[in-house]
Amino acid sequence: MNVEELKKAVAREALSFVEDDMVVGLGTGSTTSYFIRLLGKKVMEEELEVYGVPTSHQSRILAIESGIPIASLDEVDAIDIAVDGADEVDPDLNLIKGRGAALTMEKIIEYRAGTFLVLVDEGKLVERLGQKMPVPIEVIPAAWRAIAEELEVFNATAELRFAAKKDGPVVTDNGNFILDARFERIDDPLDMEIELNTIPGVVENGIFADIADVVLVGTPEGVKRLER
Amino acid sequence: MNVEELKKAVAREALSFVEDDMVVGLGTGSTTSYFIRLLGKKVMEEELEVYGVPTSHQSRILAIESGIPIASLDEVDAIDIAVDGADEVDPDLNLIKGRGAALTMEKIIEYRAGTFLVLVDEGKLVERLGQKMPVPIEVIPAAWRAIAEELEVFNATAELRFAAKKDGPVVTDNGNFILDARFERIDDPLDMEIELNTIPGVVENGIFADIADVVLVGTPEGVKRLER
Repeated sequence: MNVEELKKAVAREALSFVEDDMVVGLGTGSTTSYFIRLLGKKVMEEELEVYGVPTSHQSRILAIESGIPIASLDEVDAIDIAVDGADEVDPDLNLIKGRGAALTMEKIIEYRAGTFLVLVDEGKLVERLGQKMPVPIEVIPAAWRAIAEELEVFNATAELRFAAKKDGPVVTDNGNFILDARFERIDDPLDMEIELNTIPGVVENGIFADIADVVLVGTPEGVKRLER
Repeated sequence: MNVEELKKAVAREALSFVEDDMVVGLGTGSTTSYFIRLLGKKVMEEELEVYGVPTSHQSRILAIESGIPIASLDEVDAIDIAVDGADEVDPDLNLIKGRGAALTMEKIIEYRAGTFLVLVDEGKLVERLGQKMPVPIEVIPAAWRAIAEELEVFNATAELRFAAKKDGPVVTDNGNFILDARFERIDDPLDMEIELNTIPGVVENGIFADIADVVLVGTPEGVKRLER
C-alpha cells in the first residue's frame, strides 16, 4: 500500500466516530481532505444532521463541494469532534502541525473539541518532536525578523516560508507570515508551546501538546488506534 | 493643570531621553501623540538622525506629518528606546495597555526596545491592575465568542468591543477583534499575561508585565520619575 492508500484507510475509519447531530471540526491537509469527501457522502446517504466547522479556506471550500453544511465557530455552542492530520506525532501523542499554514484556526477549533481525532500514516510517528520537521510559527508580518532572531535563544534556526504560485512569503488565511523553526532539541513540548506563544508577535505555533485524544495510524497491517 | 497639560509636560520631559542616531519606537495614543509632534520639532531643529518605528497606523501617519523619518521593525537592527502611554500602571510598573487597540504592535516593539519609557498622568497610577480598566485582548475574529466564554474560567467577564464611526466590532490594524475583559482580581500580572496568551485564538493581551523601564508621571507638582 502506498501512502495515499494509508491516508484513505484512516479517513474511512474516522467516519465511525461521527454520529448524527454532531458538530465536526474539519481540519486541513491531504488526509483530512479524504475524510471530508467521505463525510459528505455519509451525510447525504444517511441523511445526517451534521455541521462542519472548517479550519481553513481549503476545508471550507471542500466541505461546500462535498455537501456538508458548514458553520463558523461563533455560530455553534460546542464542537463535538474535530478531525485533522498532523506532521509529527510523538509517543505521548503530542503533535507538530502547520505544514499547510492553517495551524492557528486548527488549534482554535481542535482545542475546543470534545474529542480531537488525529489521522496520520505511520510515517508521521516519531520518537521526539522536531527531529525531522521544523515547527511552523504564525507571526505578525512586521515582527518576522525580530522573532527569527529571538528564536536563537531557543537554539532554533528559523526561516521565513516563501510561497509557490505567489511571489514573496506565504500569507496565511489570517494575513500573517509563517516562520519554520528547526530546534536542536524539544525536550518538553508543552513547555515549548507556551514559551513560543509568549514572544510578542507570535500568533500561534505548531506544537499541539496534550490535546490529541485519539490518533488513528495507517499501516500496511491496517489502521492502529492510539489513545492517551 | 488639567489632564492635557499633564500629558504635554511628560511628553516634553520624554524628549530628553532621545539622542542623535537613535531608533525610537513610537507608541499610540493621546500622550504619545504630543511626544511625536514634539519629537518632530526637535529632529528638525537639531538636525538629528533619528528614525521612528511606529506601532500603529495612527503613529505612522502622525510621524510622517511631524517630519520624523520612519522605518518598519524589520528594517532596523534594534530599537534604542520606545515611548508610549499606558492605561494603568501598578507600583511594580506593570501596565495595562490597549484602549487604542494597538497593543499587539506596541508589545512587539516595546518588548524589543533597549529602554521602554512610559508616559502617563497621575490618574493612571493604581494599586492593582484591572481594578478600573478591563484588559484588552486581541483575538482572531472567528474565536471571539469561544474565548469570551473561556475567560469565565479566569473569573473574567469579556465584551466584544464595538466601533464608533464604523458599523460592527472594532477591527484592529492587524484585522482582528478586541475583547475587553474585566477580571475579578489580577494577583500576578506576569502569570496572567502568559496564561491569556496560551488560549488558542488570542493574538496578544494588554497586560505588559516586567517590561517598562522608566515611567514619567505628570502631576500638578511636576513630572515624577519612577524606575524599576
